[in-house]
Parts: sequence; C-alpha cells; structure tokens
Amino acid sequence: MKLATIRLSGNDTRAVRLDGDRLVDLGVDDLGTLLADPAWRDVARDATGPTYDVAGADFAPVVPDPSKVVCVGHNYRNHIQEMGRELPSYPTLFPKFADSLIGANDDIVKPDETDALDWEVELVIVIGERVRRADDARAEAAIAGFTVMNDVSMRDWQNRTIEWTQGKIWDSATPVGPFLVTPDEVGGVRPALHVSTTVDGQVMQSDDTGTLLFDPVFLVRYISTIITLRPGDLIATGTPAGVGHARDPKVYLVGGETVVTEIEGLGACTNRVVKSS
Amino acid sequence: MKLATIRLSGNDTRAVRLDGDRLVDLGVDDLGTLLADPAWRDVARDATGPTYDVAGADFAPVVPDPSKVVCVGHNYRNHIQEMGRELPSYPTLFPKFADSLIGANDDIVKPDETDALDWEVELVIVIGERVRRADDARAEAAIAGFTVMNDVSMRDWQNRTIEWTQGKIWDSATPVGPFLVTPDEVGGVRPALHVSTTVDGQVMQSDDTGTLLFDPVFLVRYISTIITLRPGDLIATGTPAGVGHARDPKVYLVGGETVVTEIEGLGACTNRVVKSS
Repeated sequence: MKLATIRLSGNDTRAVRLDGDRLVDLGVDDLGTLLADPAWRDVARDATGPTYDVAGADFAPVVPDPSKVVCVGHNYRNHIQEMGRELPSYPTLFPKFADSLIGANDDIVKPDETDALDWEVELVIVIGERVRRADDARAEAAIAGFTVMNDVSMRDWQNRTIEWTQGKIWDSATPVGPFLVTPDEVGGVRPALHVSTTVDGQVMQSDDTGTLLFDPVFLVRYISTIITLRPGDLIATGTPAGVGHARDPKVYLVGGETVVTEIEGLGACTNRVVKSS
Repeated sequence: MKLATIRLSGNDTRAVRLDGDRLVDLGVDDLGTLLADPAWRDVARDATGPTYDVAGADFAPVVPDPSKVVCVGHNYRNHIQEMGRELPSYPTLFPKFADSLIGANDDIVKPDETDALDWEVELVIVIGERVRRADDARAEAAIAGFTVMNDVSMRDWQNRTIEWTQGKIWDSATPVGPFLVTPDEVGGVRPALHVSTTVDGQVMQSDDTGTLLFDPVFLVRYISTIITLRPGDLIATGTPAGVGHARDPKVYLVGGETVVTEIEGLGACTNRVVKSS
C-alpha cells in the first residue's frame, strides 16, 4: 500500500490510500491518527471513502505531527568518507521536531539567517506501533513502511557549535513524503533502493539504501532501547555522499533551484527553493 | 503564581494553582492546555475550582506533552571551565522529547544499559505564547515562567558519538517541575536565583542563574529564530559546574541515591534513583 496525508481546503487534512490515479479517503485526518489504530493495516486496505485525484493532490508531511523525529548521521559509507570520518561503531543521532516538517512538494523557504542551505536525501522509517527495547522481530513489526525526506540543513548553524541540532530543526524546512509505502512493496524491512538528489536536473547524490551501515531494523532496535517509539514517529536513516557542503567548491542553495530527492519505489520530494519575501 | 500539573487517579491529570497549602483546580487537564489559551493568566488567577492538598500531590511533568524541549549546553561559566572549554559565541542546543520527561518527585529508573548516569540541575523556561523570530519584547512576553529540570544524562551514550542526543533523550528519565512559577515571583525574566544539586545530602552543584552566559530572553530570541516556540514548550538553560562526569574521580548514580535539584523560589525535584526491576 501507498498511503499519504493530503491537504484539502483550509487546515483540513485527510489520510488516503493510492489506488491507481485516485486517492481513497481512509476516514481519518492524517496518517498519525491512522497508525495509532492497531488495526490500521485493515482500515487502510478496506477503506472505500470518497476519492481525490492524485494529480492535483497537495501533500502534507506524511505524518504531520509525530511525537519525535530521530535522524541518523554517518550511515552511508561513501558519505562518511567524503566527510573525512572513520566508520562508526554506533549510529549518530540528532533530532527534528514536528514544526520542522513540510509536505513533499512544498516550497523550501530559504531563511535570511543562513548562507549555507544544503540538501540530504534520506530513507525514512515510519513507525507503526509502540515499541520500547524491541528485539529484531518486534522492530520489524513496528516498521509501518518507508518514505522520503530531504533533511535540509543550515550548515553555518549546524557548525556554530559542536551539536548539529540548531542546523537541523529549522521551522518548515524539511520535506517528508509523499507516500508511506509498506515494506511488502519495496522488498521488505531492509530495502535496497536507489536513492538520489538532483538540483535543477543535475545529479548530486546517488547511492543505494542497501549500503546503509545501520539498517532499519537495527535502528528501530537501537533507538527503542533509548526511548519509546510511537505510531507515526519518524526515523531518518542518514544521507549518502554528494551533499553541497562536502563539494569542492561547496555548493549551497540560494533560491530559485528545484531540488528532487527521490527513492526508487517510494517517490520523490520535489521542492522549489524560494527566498523569503 | 505557582502552577502545576498533578496526577489524580489513573491517567487523569489536572492543572492547578498553589494557594497556601491547597492546589486549586484550573478546569483543564494540564498546563499545556492552559497555556494554549491566550487568556491563561486570567484563567489561572481567577479559577475557583475544587482544591487538593499540596502535601499529598503527585506531580506530573509541569507540561506533560510539550511539542519540543530544547536544551542548552555550556551556559554557566564555571561548568564550561570544568569541562575544559572556551566561552562560546553561540548557545549549544540539543533536544529532549516529551517521552523523556517525568514528574518532580518520580523515581529515576536507572536503565541497565548505562553505567554513567549523571545529574544536571537546570533553570527551565516555560513558553506561554507562540513566537517566531521574537524581538526582546516579544521574547519577554513569551516567557510564561520558570521551573526546574534535572537533565539526567547517560554519559556513556552521550559520548558514543559526536552528538549528545542519544545520552539526553532517555525515556522517562528527566524530572521537570514541580511548579511553573511566573516571572513576577522571581524578580523577572532574567532571574538571579540560587541553583543547586544534592546527592544524599551532599552538595554537588551550587551556582546562581544570574551567571548564565545566555539569559532566558536571549535564548527565546535565538531559538525562535530557528523554530516556532509554542505554548508549553520548554527551554532548559544549561547546568552549572559539579556534574558527576566532571569530577575526579567521576561519580555516577548507581541506584539507591536521592537527588535533589533545587532553584531558589521555584522549588525542587526530589528523586530517588532506583534500579530497574
């Protein structure tokens, strides 16, 4: 199944299932609400509500209000090497908050306060059940599916101090979506999918999610050791080589570009970068 | 005013105001809900609901479900020096999540996975209105009041990677409370209050919140530049010298201790450290 949260008029959103070129209403406001229902798979599969045209759909963040977003750094061998680091023993974790998120096709508004706006395509795990200290079987079962994030990063702020957080949590700057795709559609809970970023058509990142050092099941186990994972929580699994900050010369987004972060089988976030008005 | 969120039977909580030795019900479930009402100061001041005895009160986290908890490192001169660092140009930010929080008198359950459980007393700003890119006046107005946090830290996990997050967000390990105290009761929005930690009666930390490098108004401005601050959000302003990890020899909590983190005029978190069963 491919599920999404779309915006209707005003602040209304609806959870939907993709059927061909139609989006079927699942009877709840968003995927966070859907995933909180232990029977969510049945509800999503069996829903026969009103439908909407996918062509005109306005995608909200796939889960608009997750209780937590945990992101992983240093998880693709090539990216670790381009940053000049050794392969780590543990995943590096940092946060985003719900307020950081935007929809898959929303504009990325470049804040005036940064001169180092960068892209990072990421495979994202969407949590489908509450888990703490999960073993492998529980971790696998807790993975509702996968989506795409552009972990937009303000490198100047990220590097102001030794902690990256302030470069990672900017308001309404992180596209996530368009679809939550269940594992059966992408080869399971450790998918090997082509992952890429283009900026105005130029390929900037290109790798395969099968080369993750710490795979999705490991990450759910690891993070759930630390904190409860709840339905709708998001885990961003890190980015491959090719970010602008690691290029020579460095390349940053200044406004006017179109950035496409895409994962095979999951879809793409396609975002214009615009200057703040 | 001194406000709190207390637990009744089951999962029920109530927002209350301290009147002498009574807690007056404010008509809503918790301080997060109260603070979301723009008229919260009037509602809190004028409430005449049922009352509860403060002596037997079971304090929930002062805001049980904030949308974000932003913590500051390196903010007391003495603590920066004990960690061997230079005075920073910018505040260092790291996160907690709502699931990290416990009540002011709850037990701190030492996870089996850590051997380096440490304390950090912190002055916490509680946000009272939604702000983004606040100026000084807006930042001051957005400060609903202050409370106390013990920013319990798993130093082994904190230092596994270059990012502290995984040592800071442990589930149900961070006491916060007991009271939200409005600025008028503590000398304003840049209070100079004695702050201390004792472990089994031994003073481990002792400083004054007036020595913060980055004061509360500055922090609200700075963080609101990055992300929207919402009613009920918490900003922990950093800890003074005297943490266990910086002692020679290092001192960690192993279970059986009572830790009191206290700020003059705000009250104390008093927590037993217990081994997981």
